[in-house]
Amino acid sequence: MPTTLLKLSCPDRVGLLSRVTAFIAERGGNLAEVHQFTDLEAEWFFTRMAIGTNTLRLPLSSLRAEFSPLAAELGAQWSIRREGEKMRVVLMVSKLGHCLADLLWRWRSGELVCDIAAVISNHDDFRGMVEREGIPFHHVPVTTANKADAFAQIERIWDETGVDLVVLARYMQIIPETLCERWEGRIMNIHHSFLPSFVGANPYERAWARGVKSIGATCHYVTGNLDEGPIIEQELVRVEHFHSPGDLLRLGRDCERQALARGVRWHLADRVLLHGKRTVVFRD
Amino acid sequence: MPTTLLKLSCPDRVGLLSRVTAFIAERGGNLAEVHQFTDLEAEWFFTRMAIGTNTLRLPLSSLRAEFSPLAAELGAQWSIRREGEKMRVVLMVSKLGHCLADLLWRWRSGELVCDIAAVISNHDDFRGMVEREGIPFHHVPVTTANKADAFAQIERIWDETGVDLVVLARYMQIIPETLCERWEGRIMNIHHSFLPSFVGANPYERAWARGVKSIGATCHYVTGNLDEGPIIEQELVRVEHFHSPGDLLRLGRDCERQALARGVRWHLADRVLLHGKRTVVFRD
Amino acid sequence: MPTTLLKLSCPDRVGLLSRVTAFIAERGGNLAEVHQFTDLEAEWFFTRMAIGTNTLRLPLSSLRAEFSPLAAELGAQWSIRREGEKMRVVLMVSKLGHCLADLLWRWRSGELVCDIAAVISNHDDFRGMVEREGIPFHHVPVTTANKADAFAQIERIWDETGVDLVVLARYMQIIPETLCERWEGRIMNIHHSFLPSFVGANPYERAWARGVKSIGATCHYVTGNLDEGPIIEQELVRVEHFHSPGDLLRLGRDCERQALARGVRWHLADRVLLHGKRTVVFRD
Amino acid sequence: MPTTLLKLSCPDRVGLLSRVTAFIAERGGNLAEVHQFTDLEAEWFFTRMAIGTNTLRLPLSSLRAEFSPLAAELGAQWSIRREGEKMRVVLMVSKLGHCLADLLWRWRSGELVCDIAAVISNHDDFRGMVEREGIPFHHVPVTTANKADAFAQIERIWDETGVDLVVLARYMQIIPETLCERWEGRIMNIHHSFLPSFVGANPYERAWARGVKSIGATCHYVTGNLDEGPIIEQELVRVEHFHSPGDLLRLGRDCERQALARGVRWHLADRVLLHGKRTVVFRD
Repeated sequence: MPTTLLKLSCPDRVGLLSRVTAFIAERGGNLAEVHQFTDLEAEWFFTRMAIGTNTLRLPLSSLRAEFSPLAAELGAQWSIRREGEKMRVVLMVSKLGHCLADLLWRWRSGELVCDIAAVISNHDDFRGMVEREGIPFHHVPVTTANKADAFAQIERIWDETGVDLVVLARYMQIIPETLCERWEGRIMNIHHSFLPSFVGANPYERAWARGVKSIGATCHYVTGNLDEGPIIEQELVRVEHFHSPGDLLRLGRDCERQALARGVRWHLADRVLLHGKRTVVFRD
Repeated sequence: MPTTLLKLSCPDRVGLLSRVTAFIAERGGNLAEVHQFTDLEAEWFFTRMAIGTNTLRLPLSSLRAEFSPLAAELGAQWSIRREGEKMRVVLMVSKLGHCLADLLWRWRSGELVCDIAAVISNHDDFRGMVEREGIPFHHVPVTTANKADAFAQIERIWDETGVDLVVLARYMQIIPETLCERWEGRIMNIHHSFLPSFVGANPYERAWARGVKSIGATCHYVTGNLDEGPIIEQELVRVEHFHSPGDLLRLGRDCERQALARGVRWHLADRVLLHGKRTVVFRD
Repeated sequence: MPTTLLKLSCPDRVGLLSRVTAFIAERGGNLAEVHQFTDLEAEWFFTRMAIGTNTLRLPLSSLRAEFSPLAAELGAQWSIRREGEKMRVVLMVSKLGHCLADLLWRWRSGELVCDIAAVISNHDDFRGMVEREGIPFHHVPVTTANKADAFAQIERIWDETGVDLVVLARYMQIIPETLCERWEGRIMNIHHSFLPSFVGANPYERAWARGVKSIGATCHYVTGNLDEGPIIEQELVRVEHFHSPGDLLRLGRDCERQALARGVRWHLADRVLLHGKRTVVFRD
Repeated sequence: MPTTLLKLSCPDRVGLLSRVTAFIAERGGNLAEVHQFTDLEAEWFFTRMAIGTNTLRLPLSSLRAEFSPLAAELGAQWSIRREGEKMRVVLMVSKLGHCLADLLWRWRSGELVCDIAAVISNHDDFRGMVEREGIPFHHVPVTTANKADAFAQIERIWDETGVDLVVLARYMQIIPETLCERWEGRIMNIHHSFLPSFVGANPYERAWARGVKSIGATCHYVTGNLDEGPIIEQELVRVEHFHSPGDLLRLGRDCERQALARGVRWHLADRVLLHGKRTVVFRD
């Protein structure tokens, strides 16, 4: 069944859900899946609606045009999108390929529905793995000296591919703040700790030294403040005294793969709504 | 904020959510929390709405009366209830008191909002524990010979207390089928296995013998078919080869306590909707 | 079967396990349960042995005396103790009684084998709950002005009861450093966050503000550095955007209860071995 | 550090651990990692020892020869093996490639240390994926008519490769009983349910219909009784009413991948000891 996705957030008010659902019902839309959440502290309303379009009495462009004045009145951030319309994704990676390999597999098997427009790396190691999937691979080395140039080149690739989502799949360079701001809510990172524990470098070694009984990974949107961005998903695994720092690395890889894959999947399906430092995730 | 709870399930159709939310909006109701789920296979619609009643322009009895024709038209099962209106609960227990003690503690501390109208047991062991909480305790021994009489007496207590929910908190007698039918969806049991594994007696011993790597507990509504009722909640814990059958018993107790406490909490807040052999749980 | 517990840690060397097991075998001891761990980074050896004493050819005091020279040679920290010999425990609590009630229940039902010598609180709220279990209750108010006196009184109670383990079951006063040092490895706390996240006050509110997707509780030994002590156990629960700070409090309580109960149980059974900032936990 | 692995199980008796560790210590072996478990119900002893061989005063063949009489006296099942000596593994797969891809990735990245001698499939779909890793791929179609011939061919491949472990990575044909018996404890399967729930076909659909709140996967040794073999590992994931049968399939895939990968890893490192219908797993 062809489906249209409406994603919307706005200040809360009486009758909000009624007005939005009436708008859709009047145009023949059938709600296949509705999520709604009201943050009572922030007085903010969030919704995601999957609308069956078989019975819809107007094309998508008209639906958008007619919804626009209502959205303006509500002061809403919103999007209306055909479900099949694939987002364009750029993956970025450094030396550790487990997340990259995992995302490629899920993409090839149809679990992640998107176009992977490019893979960018500061190393050349994964060229073969990427190109045999028919995906362009860009080797953009980053040094202290060339950092500005390198990220200018990276930004050019993002622009040329018309990227909807950048995924840092264990990319170990810090994204310049100007890029973070321009692509706010569209750059996703996997951090190899259960944030806010062990912000920064070598989290597994530090987790071992602290003697924690679980370790984890955090998928979050990237902001100018390192490891401080809004959290989308976290995955954890129990560890014990007999796990060495090397064991934590190994166990953590599975957490990283899963937290990142879920975060990407949910973003691609318009299931993540940002509000300040928190996210609303209508997971599947 | 005073709140009214609407719980409703009915066959799915176009415009359903719009009609229900319009009904509420027209009467000044503010939706504080909305859950909605459409089972696309069963073509069935489920909703639970928490309506702020400060701005509502009519008393609860009128709201019910005015909603009645709409509900009839939709072919809906529904209820409208003031959130503060406490359900009346009867707890039943045999020899193992960990679930009973846990429920009493959660009730006393305000985590479970209800009236505990009575505790019924086929043993006299927990009289002191119950009566010091100011709750009537009924000792109703059950033997093969007196089973019909015993359950007639139990049914009388249920009737006299006007019970909304019966909780079998490790009650080891089988409830007669006629009672299961009359109180369908209002008798809740905790089974000490991860159903459908280990239906019947001695599940921990059998889990040990089978060498499973996790054990669990299942909170479900009681039907005429033993351990076959709709599942509300399950809780699990990992086990290893070094856990003896006795260890499984101990570890399982924590699963039982938690799965049952959550099931009770969600039922009391109208968060569990039954449909055939499955439940929809809008958990908190 | 009567059992003797040997707990030992010392620098690693070749033949260590052989020498200790030979010592026991030569005296007729049968090893019912053996745990052994070598920290290859610290080059430190840890063991716990449960020795069946039916066949042991000498009394416990002689076993200790004969083991003493070997232990000295190995530079070991060690204890030999009859399993049935109950540790003496003092519980301390402030205003939140869920951990206290949970520990009392587990103690009464035989899950925690110990003598509860006293409960100390800076409030009088739980006197009834404690005294009806036949346990002495001490109300020791703590203010900024009387802090030194109050803790002198507390230390006196610890001394008089001959306490083996002090459990801070949501006790909200900071233990003076001198007491932390004197009772190193014998004071256990439950912190209501997944440390090292949210050290300090109001962890649930801060977890909510940060938007984490799991919250937890940490059972640890108390040292002079607040919330920095060696971790014994942690328990976690997934949370979502719809959980309010109040929901986190509620969900966290179950984590606190379980992490603390397990920590206490393992300490009472000589299953926790301290080494620097980390613990070795031979859990059951 | 070069390491030798001793794996042993035998009837329990007094002084067992002492004798085995003395044997090693007398020959200069340093115990880097020791696991020991006594099943008090079965009166059976299990151990796995990782012996540093730097200081060992004899070659591996002599160690085996000298250990042999002791093992015979103890009535032990045992093996002594150099850690670096890679087991030879054959993977078998049908139409679903997620477990195969996962195992190949973990093998290539060094997480699974073994030789993959061959991949056998009753379909030709994964030839490319396998051959580009330099692994021989055998397409052996299986029909009702040719079943005996097909498995004779499969057995020939197992024999020719000198296989130590056969992994059924979503291989959907039933292994003939004679092969199960000949390779007892050396054929590993991943079943896509949390056994013993949903033995047999279509477990995800049946889990959905039953309305369980968690689904899982089970890694087990294959015996003549379908899905009844000794369990090595299980992995679970929570599900809710909104997960369709298709969602369960997707979520289950991650459980399957992880449970199987761990089972394989532990088998390759001699961490799994079989005893009747149960396993002892000294996991890492």
